[in-house]
Amino acid sequence: MGSKYPPSVRGCLPLWTIALELAFLVIFFFFTSYDTSSQDPKELMGIYRVLQDVTIMAALGFGFLNSSLRRYGWSSVAFNLFLLALGVQWAVLVDGFLEWSFYKKVIIKLSSIKLATMSAMSVLISVGAVLGKANLLQLTVMALVEVTAFVTVRMVDRKYLGTDNHTSMMYIHVFATYFGLMVTWCLSRSPPVAVLVEKHQTTKNSSLFTMLGTLFLWIFWPSFNSALLDIPKERKTAVFNTYYALAVSAVTAISVSALSHPRGKINMTHIHNAVLAGGVAVGASCHVIGTPWLAMVLGFMAGLISIGGALCLRFPHLAVGF
Amino acid sequence: MGSKYPPSVRGCLPLWTIALELAFLVIFFFFTSYDTSSQDPKELMGIYRVLQDVTIMAALGFGFLNSSLRRYGWSSVAFNLFLLALGVQWAVLVDGFLEWSFYKKVIIKLSSIKLATMSAMSVLISVGAVLGKANLLQLTVMALVEVTAFVTVRMVDRKYLGTDNHTSMMYIHVFATYFGLMVTWCLSRSPPVAVLVEKHQTTKNSSLFTMLGTLFLWIFWPSFNSALLDIPKERKTAVFNTYYALAVSAVTAISVSALSHPRGKINMTHIHNAVLAGGVAVGASCHVIGTPWLAMVLGFMAGLISIGGALCLRFPHLAVGF
Amino acid sequence: MGSKYPPSVRGCLPLWTIALELAFLVIFFFFTSYDTSSQDPKELMGIYRVLQDVTIMAALGFGFLNSSLRRYGWSSVAFNLFLLALGVQWAVLVDGFLEWSFYKKVIIKLSSIKLATMSAMSVLISVGAVLGKANLLQLTVMALVEVTAFVTVRMVDRKYLGTDNHTSMMYIHVFATYFGLMVTWCLSRSPPVAVLVEKHQTTKNSSLFTMLGTLFLWIFWPSFNSALLDIPKERKTAVFNTYYALAVSAVTAISVSALSHPRGKINMTHIHNAVLAGGVAVGASCHVIGTPWLAMVLGFMAGLISIGGALCLRFPHLAVGF
Repeated sequence: MGSKYPPSVRGCLPLWTIALELAFLVIFFFFTSYDTSSQDPKELMGIYRVLQDVTIMAALGFGFLNSSLRRYGWSSVAFNLFLLALGVQWAVLVDGFLEWSFYKKVIIKLSSIKLATMSAMSVLISVGAVLGKANLLQLTVMALVEVTAFVTVRMVDRKYLGTDNHTSMMYIHVFATYFGLMVTWCLSRSPPVAVLVEKHQTTKNSSLFTMLGTLFLWIFWPSFNSALLDIPKERKTAVFNTYYALAVSAVTAISVSALSHPRGKINMTHIHNAVLAGGVAVGASCHVIGTPWLAMVLGFMAGLISIGGALCLRFPHLAVGF
Repeated sequence: MGSKYPPSVRGCLPLWTIALELAFLVIFFFFTSYDTSSQDPKELMGIYRVLQDVTIMAALGFGFLNSSLRRYGWSSVAFNLFLLALGVQWAVLVDGFLEWSFYKKVIIKLSSIKLATMSAMSVLISVGAVLGKANLLQLTVMALVEVTAFVTVRMVDRKYLGTDNHTSMMYIHVFATYFGLMVTWCLSRSPPVAVLVEKHQTTKNSSLFTMLGTLFLWIFWPSFNSALLDIPKERKTAVFNTYYALAVSAVTAISVSALSHPRGKINMTHIHNAVLAGGVAVGASCHVIGTPWLAMVLGFMAGLISIGGALCLRFPHLAVGF
Repeated sequence: MGSKYPPSVRGCLPLWTIALELAFLVIFFFFTSYDTSSQDPKELMGIYRVLQDVTIMAALGFGFLNSSLRRYGWSSVAFNLFLLALGVQWAVLVDGFLEWSFYKKVIIKLSSIKLATMSAMSVLISVGAVLGKANLLQLTVMALVEVTAFVTVRMVDRKYLGTDNHTSMMYIHVFATYFGLMVTWCLSRSPPVAVLVEKHQTTKNSSLFTMLGTLFLWIFWPSFNSALLDIPKERKTAVFNTYYALAVSAVTAISVSALSHPRGKINMTHIHNAVLAGGVAVGASCHVIGTPWLAMVLGFMAGLISIGGALCLRFPHLAVGF
């Protein structure tokens, strides 16, 4: 946590997050209502399953991916849950206010919670660069600003540039990385380098947790990449391409990491991000690629580039994307 | 484990659990058969998915939630699995014998295994208060008595008080907490306080596992709260309300926990239960609440109360519910 | 890793795996294409869910099951992911080349990726006996040979012995165990016994991870045993029988393990395999067993035999199967 405030002030910071939660409550009271239309139960369960997959990626995947980067691994999982729960509430509101007219209530559907969870993930990606340098209030402000910015950018993309729902979501990785780097740059004047290095040290024990997070992301990435596609054929193609790109980037990343080590060992910090690079690379185009070899080439290049970047730069977890 | 028995007797205690398993086998041989009616395959897969969600909550969620409370974390996960596997078998039998007439065989359906898993969860909730004070045989007896009591109470609720299937299940948290406290009180005469304190000490390493259990419960709680509802609209409302109550209680609990610490840190033992308090609070009424703000108020109050209770009382994991 | 090569040679070994990945790319370019037929979206999602379950078993279950057996737990999870990603690509190709004629392209369906994941699991089962004794290249060769052998044996089974798709898959446990033992025997001449013992030492911390892997396998085993059955009634029966066999083998294994310990404690290394023995035992016949007691007897015997085997033999994780 930051140490520039006296203890009395620092102790009161969380009061603001409680006040924010109360403000959310009032806004939901006046401006929202549930969707009460009757829907096909099968379709409903399908959306619920995808929502569950996305929530597993967000809460377990990103939660544990960052757990080895800090001295207090468990609290990074708690912060992750906090930002997810807060971000989803805010994203539902922002999405609603941008899409509907102001004199009607915002209708909350299962699919709008799914969309909000995906938007809130931008915060979870950015937070990897900021963890250990920001307190609870700074993280909260960052979450609100980032979700607003991301949802607005998506709206502009869709309304004025004609990008479809799926593609505008896939820019999340680029957006979140640069947003995280920008926030780090703003915050970076306070902590001296010595502290930084210490906070980036990883422990052997928690690396298995990071691997756990990586595997959850690896398994549910096809669900993420196909979540916003409505046509079954496109959805199937998206699952295929994401799966092949992930498989090839995993093999490439682990091989190249072993190759770059003088005694043939695998570098843990390389793997966590490079294994997933295929899923990021194939994201925007996964529903139009028609052959496995193209997805595999993308996965291969993504694995190479992210390991190469990690070797050249000194801050691997910043360089690679998230 | 208890130390009041000589080694020779203590070594033989597990023989009783094997004898019990053999007795189950004989009962299943004479009194049960599988459901052989043909069913809509889609509906069947739907029930199987919910059964899977509930099993993940029971085996992973509760298993790892208790893993930091004992010196030997891994054996608490093993005990949890033992009680789950035993409890489900017994709950299927008790449910069957209470519902059907005695001269017909008990028909085992997928939905009856789902129901039995939910009933067996009462044992997993109670066991948090007892772990470290009971041996394998005592836990087995507790599981049999508690499942019998809970299934009977549910049957009385439904038949004579007119409560519906869903609501009578949601009393599980209250029932299991008081049952657990009662068993602790009965067992509490043997171990001196010094041992108790030592056994309640948590280790840094295993707290991430507890967080893992908490997250599994957080993710799959909407499935639990909507598992026994048949009407699609009610099921959708239950998912909505549980989701919002959980989100608000997570934000509230983490904020209040940071507020109560002089240096703004988050207390791990607070979080594990308070984050889930929203799901418990909204349980019985989640299918009838029609607006998000009401679920959010319930989640807010639940988060406040459970952190408040943990701060006032000295045994947080007993005070909060499970 | 093996130490018989000089550092310069050892450093180049991963180059071969990258070359292999490039070769795969070329083969996929010339010989495969995606399935572009339109399919019922509900059925598609059903296959995708089963694929997800099988991937969770493979990546998380087997990944963490082996994580306590080595000094570097996390790298065993990484090797597991490497072998899974490589094995699935190869299994799709071998399956395709054996089934279709050579002058047509191999059509990749979602169900063929599901089948390939199940075939690739044979490598993950075998690798438990080899971990710590083989380097990346040796593991790669083993994966290619084992997948080719297993897919060919299955094809011979189906075409010439008339075994159905489901039953021929269920021999995977026997096949993979003996294959793993054979590979261990071939590799066993190099490392002295002292190293072996040290590498088999387990750490307290990672045993919870092993338990995590065991629980994932326990939860998703019914999905594995019913994945290749097409008739809904058979699928339901398979879920029932696997569930009951697993429940009984868990209770039996934990009881017998406590019984065999002089102070009534549970031996961790016993549990990990014996808890799952019921699922293996019921595998080949789970769709034809018509009564719960028969599945329970099989689970009971499997639990007894695998704990008994672990007590008699000195290498429990080799003796039990995986």
